[in-house]
Amino acid sequence: MEELMEVENKQVILKGYIDRAPLESDMELKVGNQIKLKISKGCNSVLVKNLYLSCDPYMRARMRDFQGSYIPPFVPGKPIEGFGVSKVIDSDDPNFQAGDIVSGFTGWEEYSLIEDTKKLRKIQQHDIPLSYHIGLLGMPGFTAYAGFYEICSPKKGDRVFVSAASGAVGQIVGQLAKLYGCYVVGSAGTKEKVDLLKTKLGFDDAFNYKEEQDLDATLKRFFPEGIDIYFENVGGAMLDAVLLNMRVHGRIAVCGMVSQHSNHDKEGIHNLFSIIRNRLTIKGFLQSDYLHLFPKFVEQVGAYYREGKIVYIEDMNEGLESAPSALVGLFTGKNVGKQVVCVSRD
Amino acid sequence: MEELMEVENKQVILKGYIDRAPLESDMELKVGNQIKLKISKGCNSVLVKNLYLSCDPYMRARMRDFQGSYIPPFVPGKPIEGFGVSKVIDSDDPNFQAGDIVSGFTGWEEYSLIEDTKKLRKIQQHDIPLSYHIGLLGMPGFTAYAGFYEICSPKKGDRVFVSAASGAVGQIVGQLAKLYGCYVVGSAGTKEKVDLLKTKLGFDDAFNYKEEQDLDATLKRFFPEGIDIYFENVGGAMLDAVLLNMRVHGRIAVCGMVSQHSNHDKEGIHNLFSIIRNRLTIKGFLQSDYLHLFPKFVEQVGAYYREGKIVYIEDMNEGLESAPSALVGLFTGKNVGKQVVCVSRD
Repeated sequence: MEELMEVENKQVILKGYIDRAPLESDMELKVGNQIKLKISKGCNSVLVKNLYLSCDPYMRARMRDFQGSYIPPFVPGKPIEGFGVSKVIDSDDPNFQAGDIVSGFTGWEEYSLIEDTKKLRKIQQHDIPLSYHIGLLGMPGFTAYAGFYEICSPKKGDRVFVSAASGAVGQIVGQLAKLYGCYVVGSAGTKEKVDLLKTKLGFDDAFNYKEEQDLDATLKRFFPEGIDIYFENVGGAMLDAVLLNMRVHGRIAVCGMVSQHSNHDKEGIHNLFSIIRNRLTIKGFLQSDYLHLFPKFVEQVGAYYREGKIVYIEDMNEGLESAPSALVGLFTGKNVGKQVVCVSRD
Repeated sequence: MEELMEVENKQVILKGYIDRAPLESDMELKVGNQIKLKISKGCNSVLVKNLYLSCDPYMRARMRDFQGSYIPPFVPGKPIEGFGVSKVIDSDDPNFQAGDIVSGFTGWEEYSLIEDTKKLRKIQQHDIPLSYHIGLLGMPGFTAYAGFYEICSPKKGDRVFVSAASGAVGQIVGQLAKLYGCYVVGSAGTKEKVDLLKTKLGFDDAFNYKEEQDLDATLKRFFPEGIDIYFENVGGAMLDAVLLNMRVHGRIAVCGMVSQHSNHDKEGIHNLFSIIRNRLTIKGFLQSDYLHLFPKFVEQVGAYYREGKIVYIEDMNEGLESAPSALVGLFTGKNVGKQVVCVSRD
């Protein structure tokens, strides 16, 4: 019987540190290592089967050999880590039982032994697609929620610009801003994404930044009276153009700079003088600093979803073996909506 | 009698718009135009004799042909304008009488007819040097006050870095931060200024940025545990180095970027990723947005001065003809302390 409980556990491991956007060859699918599907008493851990894994831009920072960040780097030779939705197989933690569905940090592998169970959340909302717990109701959704309500100081009628607007965070920011009574424009990198923004996601307008020669002129076209709130997801040239188009007392919430995920932005930002001229506030934030609001967020955004007031677009890759290309695709804009990897549906 | 009332009125005029740091040759001393020392009834204006004129970095922005700022450009062929302390010669505004000493916007000339009298302030504190009303108790002092208390969110024990620290604003920020219980380091561009910071102005430490090869390493030396508050007066390379040394939840108050007073910073800022990593708040401000606090400021800083808790260093040029070189000197760091031009002592 004991022997039957040991199964193969495929893993995606990081081969070594990098200091650029990741390539598939930076990761390796490791097949053939075994794992016991029973955990030992007294370990206080939870053994899970991973169902859905999240690909997020911040993960690039964990592929660098840099300890000074808010989160330590991955360990070469070990599985990539990230947010996931998982099913509990066996538990030595009284808060979890076999069969529970949980979300939290897990490994890029079929089965994970989770030792730090304090941050695991048991999923209660079974009327919402499971994978949404790493998207709409997970870290990206909460980033949008905390960023928009706590950082952007929105007012009804504010002119809001969202970059990477069809991405995991941007699509929610835009919809929350619309529900708040703002005028919302988004940018994205393909015609398909722009169409989604204008139709399915209900943005007032949207444009493909790759087709624009002069982002300053583009923004003046969409915001002839300027921008009150910029939800910054990309950095670089877009940020520089936005700075030229902010209204007095405008707010810029910075949660990601997907175009700039290295320690040093070679191009540089040139228009910071606008910070004084327009008395701007630029505020960086991490959703993890606002976790006291998480229950309220799940309640409110869950309700919006059930009422049909908010939708969520996912890009689902099938199979653990597709995880490296899914992650790599984030940095070229291949994903349409929140990038998820389905390891198993149950 | 009437004839005797007409006197020569020397003026410093702007010759034409520029888009670089000003040179003395951009201005001209115009001698020989006459002004009547009596104003006509019904004009609601005030005629003043200018005593002290203020040279401030923001004035460079008014020498450009750019209407989109918070303050319109100067008019070529007309006198430069700026803050000044003046004596009322004649008044058709019931709020002012001949002999009153006032501060407010005036012209770079011996006598000015001030039509917009609403912003003129009658000086009440006659135990404080008159010129301090365009420094310690004027716009620069109020910039320091509003910036430190309203923008920097200071806490006792915070580590504060001030650039251009011996300048009109910086010297007050540093002293207010010390009085608040912060650890304060300043940077300046000469040994003389650094000595003043450490002795007369009571900073905990100071350095000459021109003698440092690697500003990042310098800041790590003075702030081994990082910076909580940066009072930004210079921009450019210093801001970039500061970004690498901010502590989590650090605040950057931006009131000036004297090294970057053009529309486009060629060098660029490269380390904005720190905004996310360290959840920084960068906030631009103008003292004019906080004028409701002005009476409280005059009371508090006036009291600090009378109690000997705060000092103020001025660099006084004598004579209107020295005004162009005084203004130009701001952008090469020639001034030691607040740059003032004395047109007349009474």
